[in-house]
Amino acid sequence: MINVSIISIGDEVRIGQVVNSNAAWLSSEITKLGAFVTKQITIGDEPNVMESTINSEMKSNDIVITTGGLGPTHDDITKEILLKIFDDKFCFHQDTFENIKELFRIRNREVTERNRLQAYIPSKAIPLYNALGTAPGLMFQKNGKFLFVLPGVPAEMKFITNDSILPKLSEIISLKNESVILYKTLNVSGIFESALADLIGNPSDFLRDSTLAFLPSYKGIRLRIGTKADSFEKAQIEIDRIKSVLYSKAGKFIYAEDETDITSELGKILSERRQTLSVAESCTGGGLGHELTRISGASKFFLGGIITYSNEAKINKLGVRTNTIVRYGAVSKETAKEMAKNCRKFFDSDFSISITGIAGPDGGTQEKPIGTVWIGIADRKTVSAEVFYFGKERDVNRERAIHTALLHLYRKLK
Amino acid sequence: MINVSIISIGDEVRIGQVVNSNAAWLSSEITKLGAFVTKQITIGDEPNVMESTINSEMKSNDIVITTGGLGPTHDDITKEILLKIFDDKFCFHQDTFENIKELFRIRNREVTERNRLQAYIPSKAIPLYNALGTAPGLMFQKNGKFLFVLPGVPAEMKFITNDSILPKLSEIISLKNESVILYKTLNVSGIFESALADLIGNPSDFLRDSTLAFLPSYKGIRLRIGTKADSFEKAQIEIDRIKSVLYSKAGKFIYAEDETDITSELGKILSERRQTLSVAESCTGGGLGHELTRISGASKFFLGGIITYSNEAKINKLGVRTNTIVRYGAVSKETAKEMAKNCRKFFDSDFSISITGIAGPDGGTQEKPIGTVWIGIADRKTVSAEVFYFGKERDVNRERAIHTALLHLYRKLK
Repeated sequence: MINVSIISIGDEVRIGQVVNSNAAWLSSEITKLGAFVTKQITIGDEPNVMESTINSEMKSNDIVITTGGLGPTHDDITKEILLKIFDDKFCFHQDTFENIKELFRIRNREVTERNRLQAYIPSKAIPLYNALGTAPGLMFQKNGKFLFVLPGVPAEMKFITNDSILPKLSEIISLKNESVILYKTLNVSGIFESALADLIGNPSDFLRDSTLAFLPSYKGIRLRIGTKADSFEKAQIEIDRIKSVLYSKAGKFIYAEDETDITSELGKILSERRQTLSVAESCTGGGLGHELTRISGASKFFLGGIITYSNEAKINKLGVRTNTIVRYGAVSKETAKEMAKNCRKFFDSDFSISITGIAGPDGGTQEKPIGTVWIGIADRKTVSAEVFYFGKERDVNRERAIHTALLHLYRKLK
Repeated sequence: MINVSIISIGDEVRIGQVVNSNAAWLSSEITKLGAFVTKQITIGDEPNVMESTINSEMKSNDIVITTGGLGPTHDDITKEILLKIFDDKFCFHQDTFENIKELFRIRNREVTERNRLQAYIPSKAIPLYNALGTAPGLMFQKNGKFLFVLPGVPAEMKFITNDSILPKLSEIISLKNESVILYKTLNVSGIFESALADLIGNPSDFLRDSTLAFLPSYKGIRLRIGTKADSFEKAQIEIDRIKSVLYSKAGKFIYAEDETDITSELGKILSERRQTLSVAESCTGGGLGHELTRISGASKFFLGGIITYSNEAKINKLGVRTNTIVRYGAVSKETAKEMAKNCRKFFDSDFSISITGIAGPDGGTQEKPIGTVWIGIADRKTVSAEVFYFGKERDVNRERAIHTALLHLYRKLK
């Protein structure tokens, strides 16, 4: 198996000013190829720690990937450390400089001396093209092992990984004829974890050498199969076998595979059927619309929405009856239904989803505690609404409301 | 200085299925106390790796904190590893069992044998009360060093940290009379990184033993001061001195301190002035409204918004003139202005922000490339719009548009 270690460099990550989403993204992409991520390490901008960490990880892994510390300022010292590790010196790389000039030309800015210096790279490194920024990635090879050095800016890191590293990694795996480990995730919802476990029974009855993990979250439960095999193909066959066992046992609760999320699934169905959607949001403040338009091509099915955060807006802009709000409250079945129904009419869409709830931390009552959320769905003929009781945390409640609303419409369409 | 290492345990983090926000949160809280986070390490559910990582981190740090692997299922093996490391055995802890029973009573569920087993903890550990879950935290002490073991569920991890670990850590720092390291962040925007560097000049002229980091992001640039001193108070004084130097040099570009973000700052101003805001969104699809309502208490100033993703919605729902769209396009100064103006009228708010742009990856032209975003602002008398050219990535463009729109209004109000 190809072992990979990921090192994130930067005080901003070390002290928690930034959440390390780079490491998660890299791990996920590398894992998909069948390589084994042994460790993610985050360290600060300290030369000694950088040097010793890169050295020790290169000893115990086939591939090491670092992110961060490649920018133009004085605290970007990764390249200096690399000179030391590889006993190397800088040389000027013309192609990299041309790329830097081109980037500045597009942005209508002058190339500064500071940026010209970014075209100096260690002579033993192969530069990796960065279409989005001035710092190229770097690839070193030593004793059959590889070190990839990437900038910390997520978009640039992703570009270089997709463009250079993943193809190289595939090549290494197939050339070395190494065994692989693959994962497959089935997304489950609408059932409690313990009930799902009962439904599936004893996993060792069908797993053989594979593993099965239960990952509960507010989006439901993810079932993750992990399979090690001599080749990508063999692992795939074994995963397919286990998948079919799981589908036979719990198929009706599985709504999607892998990280394909419910938003994309919903978008696919609506686009295929040429149906349209609009949204009426209160406590989520536009988050449902924002999530739906995350997918490029959302214009095929998403018409728009109304954010009615205040009661006045619900009444005056969305036509919810004053009487409904006075009698039942803004967070009620009746309000949710009127919001969905009127929004659908307003946009003349095939469907409309409404969300009205108490996200917290204020506004909860004995009868309607924080976390109470009504979700309404209207089509051209009917309208219905359902209540959910989430937790105490504002952010989580809003995310859960958005996800549940999407899942709800998805279920209705299937 | 007190050195702290954070170890996150779990295959879901190792393979990147989950972003490690636990480590960022812990690092941030620990850093605020003046302790030094040396490293964050993420490893999988493998006994040998867990044992060796905990051992080696305990050697080189004063305090080690682990998260994950304390649940009731078969892959939660952290406690077994601890027995080995501390040459210990399990004993039944009655208070923990009472807590488990209480949690199940509230949830109206029966205590299962699986959960009763969670009351068995290593005899050398001091259990740390967990009000939110069945797994208590654990504290070990050995050769003057501490190991804290926490569950991976973020809410539970945070509860135990706030309730037990941070007070203990403060005590250790003050008892040991250790030096501390403190950070202060100044949020800058409206200036390029290189121009800011020129404005500030050579940092070593005024930094003495402190450090200054430039952290650029789509939200602008964060300037982070890091100061080491004998005491919390002395560090504070030195940070204040450097802060005043930075304000004297670049004060007009500094809009906030620490993690206080622009959304909160804007919300404060509007609330204080009792002014109201509405939004008209196209390419951000509701994200601006969602961001504004992230803050609890947003109802004081935020009335609502209209998401007009399609041209038809812009015309029919927001009253943008067909002629404007035909002549200038949906992404234009004229459309942005009409959107903002009409939205303000529609909601009768004091201000309205509009966003219309080409987020990508499709829809770009020679004249209006991907990343072109017009942002309009209307008040009761005037309306204006400005164009921005962001990058090529859809997600980033949408986030930048939202942030820039907020900053724009904030500037106008100041």
